[in-house]
Amino acid sequence: MAERAALEELVKLQGERVRGLKQQKASAELIEEEVAKLLKLKAQLGPDESKQKFVLKTPKGTRDYSPRQMAVREKVFDVIIRCFKRHGAEVIDTPVFELKETLMGKYGEDSKLIYDLKDQGGELLSLRYDLTVPFARYLAMNKLTNIKRYHIAKDFDIAGNFDPMIPDAECLKIMCEILSSLQIGDFLVKVNDRRILDGMFAICGVSDSKFRTICSSVDKLDKVSWEEVKNEMVGEKGLAPEVADRIGDYVQQHGGVSLVEQLLQDPKLSQSKQALEGLGDLKLLFEYLTLFGIDDKISFDLSLARGLDYYTGVIYEAVLLQTPAQAGEEPLGVGSVAAGGRYDGLVGMFDPKGRKVPCVGLSIGVERIFSIVEQRLEALEEKVRTTETQVLVASAQKKLLEERLKLVSELWDAGIKAELLYKKNPKLLNQLQYCEEAGIPLVAIIGEQELKDGVIKLRSVTSREEVDVRREDLVEEIKRRTGQPLCIC
Amino acid sequence: MAERAALEELVKLQGERVRGLKQQKASAELIEEEVAKLLKLKAQLGPDESKQKFVLKTPKGTRDYSPRQMAVREKVFDVIIRCFKRHGAEVIDTPVFELKETLMGKYGEDSKLIYDLKDQGGELLSLRYDLTVPFARYLAMNKLTNIKRYHIAKDFDIAGNFDPMIPDAECLKIMCEILSSLQIGDFLVKVNDRRILDGMFAICGVSDSKFRTICSSVDKLDKVSWEEVKNEMVGEKGLAPEVADRIGDYVQQHGGVSLVEQLLQDPKLSQSKQALEGLGDLKLLFEYLTLFGIDDKISFDLSLARGLDYYTGVIYEAVLLQTPAQAGEEPLGVGSVAAGGRYDGLVGMFDPKGRKVPCVGLSIGVERIFSIVEQRLEALEEKVRTTETQVLVASAQKKLLEERLKLVSELWDAGIKAELLYKKNPKLLNQLQYCEEAGIPLVAIIGEQELKDGVIKLRSVTSREEVDVRREDLVEEIKRRTGQPLCIC
Repeated sequence: MAERAALEELVKLQGERVRGLKQQKASAELIEEEVAKLLKLKAQLGPDESKQKFVLKTPKGTRDYSPRQMAVREKVFDVIIRCFKRHGAEVIDTPVFELKETLMGKYGEDSKLIYDLKDQGGELLSLRYDLTVPFARYLAMNKLTNIKRYHIAKDFDIAGNFDPMIPDAECLKIMCEILSSLQIGDFLVKVNDRRILDGMFAICGVSDSKFRTICSSVDKLDKVSWEEVKNEMVGEKGLAPEVADRIGDYVQQHGGVSLVEQLLQDPKLSQSKQALEGLGDLKLLFEYLTLFGIDDKISFDLSLARGLDYYTGVIYEAVLLQTPAQAGEEPLGVGSVAAGGRYDGLVGMFDPKGRKVPCVGLSIGVERIFSIVEQRLEALEEKVRTTETQVLVASAQKKLLEERLKLVSELWDAGIKAELLYKKNPKLLNQLQYCEEAGIPLVAIIGEQELKDGVIKLRSVTSREEVDVRREDLVEEIKRRTGQPLCIC
Repeated sequence: MAERAALEELVKLQGERVRGLKQQKASAELIEEEVAKLLKLKAQLGPDESKQKFVLKTPKGTRDYSPRQMAVREKVFDVIIRCFKRHGAEVIDTPVFELKETLMGKYGEDSKLIYDLKDQGGELLSLRYDLTVPFARYLAMNKLTNIKRYHIAKDFDIAGNFDPMIPDAECLKIMCEILSSLQIGDFLVKVNDRRILDGMFAICGVSDSKFRTICSSVDKLDKVSWEEVKNEMVGEKGLAPEVADRIGDYVQQHGGVSLVEQLLQDPKLSQSKQALEGLGDLKLLFEYLTLFGIDDKISFDLSLARGLDYYTGVIYEAVLLQTPAQAGEEPLGVGSVAAGGRYDGLVGMFDPKGRKVPCVGLSIGVERIFSIVEQRLEALEEKVRTTETQVLVASAQKKLLEERLKLVSELWDAGIKAELLYKKNPKLLNQLQYCEEAGIPLVAIIGEQELKDGVIKLRSVTSREEVDVRREDLVEEIKRRTGQPLCIC
């Protein structure tokens, strides 16, 4: 018993060690080693008959959505999808999991966050990590060379060989349209380019092998100070202090197209062909963004790096501008609400002949946006309906269930959104209360006398006014009051 | 080398063996044994450096949806969701995977079809298999005692303690409304009850332990003959032939409410309290279905069994009625397009105190329905648009990219669905052809002379008629022609 308790304690500690290593993004080999140790310990523990405790929860990192939260989510998705459609995007869908081979080697440091499916003797599978790699797989598989598509209400991409920067500019226009329509506050879109970053690192003296790891330090500048970033690069990643200082001169700069023009003249940076290419494209991009009327929302920011390996050109990230915390409201963190960039090499990784299909796209941070919108609605104390029911079919006396069933069926067949209580003899008061709680605007009340007279009593829940309507006119009257067209949709 | 080839052959054969066992629904223990053998063999093979062949595909059993297929899917989902909303359902969402414990022991024989996630030292997870068990988990977790909800555009459930059969009848009404609206042909809804099945097996002499397995033989009667089913029950499952014959007398019957009434009088069946309960509820159900106007679509069918363990009362399944194969059309298989039933015990399995929440629901077989609708559209050779773009912004001469960018941006800001080609100097002919292929109805053509005159040439793609519209009137003219309301939505 004591032995078992000691073993359980070891398992718990080892589990914490593994979690810690994952959080710190330790190397994949180290994590695998420690996981193997954990599994060995767990195997020693064996099945525990005394452990009947069953935990009622969703997996770590996932959540349910209640009807109220779904109502918010649907509003947000509606804005996003309207925008994608307004820009002429088609829509595709891909499976929730892919062959493990498809996802391997595409995500760099983020690879350890991928969920694998258990090897059950068949194909090795993994849950998809984003929608971009599946999209590239889809293009290569179907030998498509151009498409403009959205996926769920999150991702929008333009694939194809086109004249430079026009699709890239449209992606930024879309991002700005969506964030404005959502009314979540002022925002800023930071823009940079992988070629400028790589060119800058090269002329500062960073060795090729350190590019990605220095990149990921620089990316932290939106959250921590330059001193901390410099310490990480010099202290942990072995960068020479003078190289770090040179980097610091560049990455702390941000501005508009004038900064682009200034850097095009920079004596050191203009020695890098890569950086010049990137700067040239950004200059063109800014021209298009001005024609699109969004240049005031864009900031060329040399510290923007973005984690994913597959970006090859322009990269961008939209952040909300912090507003002072209002009474009762949690201060908004600094975090991105949308991001994206150009990735010209990804499809070629899938094509057997390595044929490239240039792509540029964006992803909306829907989870973050839900939280923000939910917070705002709560602060405003706005009541959100979770159903669209227009009329409750109710009865004033007992033994009228059959009549209610007949009438509600007539209303459904006429396309009207209607409900009834699942009780044989509900009290009128309970039925009216149900309407108030659910926000149902009308009640169609059946009564014995009214049945004889061939009428239904139509009651407005808010005004409490009642009027007798002839049965044959009821559908039209309800549609008139709820603003519905007279034909069935 | 030869040794390796022999080993690869063994792996291949063992893999086929495992697949075969899964298809035949062999016992879980046998499958696990053979999978373990397979994994051992694969481990011996080790990593194969010569095997560079990367297969570009989706996992077995999954598929992508192209824009055309998505257009069909969206139409189908739209019909389904309208119906759910018409009946006052709220909507929830749950994660794509659950704790393995949540799903264990809920699916009976279907359990082996569940995908587990790899044990990576954290929680043990599995991909969700249906939406019903997650729903029950959600109810228990949130201590909800009543809700009417839909999930994605597939599942609809009513949870709560209500007067008998009213929610059950509404589920059947919903199923009929959806299948009628989809216009996929004539259909029939078979109805039965677990209590009638179990009562019938008992009075026929089936031992309790054989109930589920005999049930699953009986369920095959919609696909194979009674002789084959009898052979399986007697030959493979060890049922006495005379017991099988007694079952045969019942399960080959189907009809309307008159069959219910006849069985209520059946000397043997009426000895089973369970069966009488089930028959009584079905009688009540038929009364309500008649009031809902759908009794002509319902058939009480004693051979309907349904696989899932968690049903406790009424069960139902909608099938399309086979039409003779028309020229060029594949004959429709006999298969269900929707199904469901009552499951009063499932939530109690999650609640720590075992508190029950009665539930009844339905699931729409969306994949099957997509195939059918896709087939029909192809037969009709109906062109399905994959975008909703209303106008292409085009240029008649070179060096007009800036003007196009400005104009398309104005249109987007006014809520109009517009596109432009991503080329600096596209030919007018190519732009017009793009519209024809994509089904875009209007072209807004910018020309040098027109710019000086302050007009845009608006061209109808189908009629080829062109008219000059003043720039400030363009938005309104496009909205008028495309039937859009004048305010921005």
